[in-house]
Amino acid sequence: MNAPIRDWEPAYAARASRMQASEIRELLKLLEQPDVISFAGGIPDPALFPREAAARAYAEIMAEPAEAARALQYSISEGHSGLRQWIVEHMRGRGVDCGIDNVVITSGSQQGLDFLARLLLSPGDTALVTWPTYLGALQAFNAYEPRYERLMPLAGNRPAASYAEAAAGAVPGGRVKFAYVVPDFANPTGETMTLETRQRLLALAEELDIPVIEDAAYAALRYDGAEVPAVQALDVARRGHIDAARTIYCGTFSKTISPGLRVGWICAAKPIVQRLVLMKQASDLNSPQLNQMVMLRLAETGYAAQVDAARALYRRRRDCMLAALARHMPDGVGWSRPDGGLFIWLMLPEGRDAKALLPRAVEEARVAYVPGGAFFADGSGVNSMRLSFSMAGEAQIEAGIARLAAVIGG
Amino acid sequence: MNAPIRDWEPAYAARASRMQASEIRELLKLLEQPDVISFAGGIPDPALFPREAAARAYAEIMAEPAEAARALQYSISEGHSGLRQWIVEHMRGRGVDCGIDNVVITSGSQQGLDFLARLLLSPGDTALVTWPTYLGALQAFNAYEPRYERLMPLAGNRPAASYAEAAAGAVPGGRVKFAYVVPDFANPTGETMTLETRQRLLALAEELDIPVIEDAAYAALRYDGAEVPAVQALDVARRGHIDAARTIYCGTFSKTISPGLRVGWICAAKPIVQRLVLMKQASDLNSPQLNQMVMLRLAETGYAAQVDAARALYRRRRDCMLAALARHMPDGVGWSRPDGGLFIWLMLPEGRDAKALLPRAVEEARVAYVPGGAFFADGSGVNSMRLSFSMAGEAQIEAGIARLAAVIGG
Repeated sequence: MNAPIRDWEPAYAARASRMQASEIRELLKLLEQPDVISFAGGIPDPALFPREAAARAYAEIMAEPAEAARALQYSISEGHSGLRQWIVEHMRGRGVDCGIDNVVITSGSQQGLDFLARLLLSPGDTALVTWPTYLGALQAFNAYEPRYERLMPLAGNRPAASYAEAAAGAVPGGRVKFAYVVPDFANPTGETMTLETRQRLLALAEELDIPVIEDAAYAALRYDGAEVPAVQALDVARRGHIDAARTIYCGTFSKTISPGLRVGWICAAKPIVQRLVLMKQASDLNSPQLNQMVMLRLAETGYAAQVDAARALYRRRRDCMLAALARHMPDGVGWSRPDGGLFIWLMLPEGRDAKALLPRAVEEARVAYVPGGAFFADGSGVNSMRLSFSMAGEAQIEAGIARLAAVIGG
Repeated sequence: MNAPIRDWEPAYAARASRMQASEIRELLKLLEQPDVISFAGGIPDPALFPREAAARAYAEIMAEPAEAARALQYSISEGHSGLRQWIVEHMRGRGVDCGIDNVVITSGSQQGLDFLARLLLSPGDTALVTWPTYLGALQAFNAYEPRYERLMPLAGNRPAASYAEAAAGAVPGGRVKFAYVVPDFANPTGETMTLETRQRLLALAEELDIPVIEDAAYAALRYDGAEVPAVQALDVARRGHIDAARTIYCGTFSKTISPGLRVGWICAAKPIVQRLVLMKQASDLNSPQLNQMVMLRLAETGYAAQVDAARALYRRRRDCMLAALARHMPDGVGWSRPDGGLFIWLMLPEGRDAKALLPRAVEEARVAYVPGGAFFADGSGVNSMRLSFSMAGEAQIEAGIARLAAVIGG
């Protein structure tokens, strides 16, 4: 039956024009072919998931009638208090002295990014992001109609006033509302901000009087070198107390324990957390209590072991990919050498187009990646690509990089 | 340590002023005292939760390595396709012929309301809602800065043009963007729209060319009388096909199986569902796959039995509360006689204030309810209150209503 499809466009809010299908998403659908070696996703290897411990945790909770009733019922929007207390201890380990009222549970850190943009951005406000930055952050922010200004490499000495002037010049009354960074093993570049850069970022934020959103999704996955303090830890040290600090920390269990349970958190000053709890209530009431109870058991009994296993596995794959790149890539191709995380950023020679190359890479070389332009708020970066080493075995990495190099060189 | 708390207010988006703490939420915190009989919540009785079946479902999925890996991994934003297919069959049972591409999984129907408001409302747009309406819908919508117009009792013959004129008159360019209804056993009144009223609503929506959001949270919980067709079923019948229909149906398993798993859905025309899938991706990537897998098993094996058990339990409690109201309430107090759902709406004599009465009800009579004014977009309705019969046993209902009547009469 060919009924007329209603034209819904006139019914939508103005913001809907900023919420279009991502070209990348469409591209990635084409990649799900069994013989394609994919460096495209950024998902954890399920071999690391603590299946048996999770099975035990679900069974124990469901076997206990009172616990099960609590698990299957509505719960408070703040999140499970035991889990929030675990996160308080975890944040102390990261140098952030905080209390349970500084923590709210979100459905992954993605929901944290959505909530923070909703809380902070009026249409036309300016968000400072790196070029490139996490694609999912741009998607979350876009619904609230910001403009973007490039958070320059902070050694670049761009004066704070010039950011404010650009924001006000672009939109009457426009203001810079926050800076967003992934300081550790960033998605997509794999790069880590130095201590000095973090301090300069905080100084810039102070001068502009804006919050800093610290996306710490990959922070636990360090393979080399010494930990750099969290931006929030440096901020709390400067200000004397988390409630006086401007950094809003988005954490998650997705890269260390399991993304499927959808458990993340925001750690921030109390007034921000109170606002976010109200937003959580209005948005989806609460994240599933049962998943939070299970996550607490998994974190209490196995967080360190999970992180150790993930580090060992991904370190080998990173090393393997770096070696393969060195072995196979033609002259003129450069790449990042990340100390952690899941990604290597590859730069083709100026003038090359990674998106245009993708169909050939998939069809001829049976290898996939994400073209880098998707990660740039202004659509630049066409000669870059993101390679993930999280899901491919070492033999696949070696073969895939060799084949990719041939397509790039050919 | 008394560090200065940063003043966050200037950092917020304009919409934040509409996202304040609800007085009711603050009030309800005071009610969690063990000897208070609460008619305030609207949550299901956990005695009905299918604990053993859920325990089995979790155990079976986690015992199977491939299933467990899928359950603990990221998944697609649309939701679990098996569950969506079950919902397609369920919607057919409600008279709505649709396909899997007409269904997207949400984290409870609350997330559906948030998403629809985000998709449809620009600031100053008008939402048509009943007076009173579901408080959580107002909270979800408020983040997108609408104004509200009263969806008159539809026998009231308010001409369609007058709604459009009011919207344009209040805000330059302002438009009516949707009508929101809870047609079956509404929260808070317990009332059900007649077939004729549903048809009039669709006619009004056609004249205004706006979508209708049908919140069907309680639709399965009928205790008396014959089912009235879903608004969406009537709409599809008028238009010939769901993709030509304007009704957007928000469903949930929260009132029939378990609210804690946070699984709801939206059924609508394909273009709307495609937009919502993008929004889901930007908002929280996906609802937990494991909970969806478990919900599918529970629905496949026990949906009818769950609904039967819930109907039997709540029917008895409704009858008990209606009998107690008739026995104890003083002259001049009126109440609804719902055919289903979880709520009875009580009207005090004109001039009485249910919110002002609440502290006395709690302190003297040890009984709690939700003052009705919270459910009115304009803050009217001060002489009304919402009573839920879902959580109290029959002896408690009898005692609580007697004590409440004494406070009202005294």
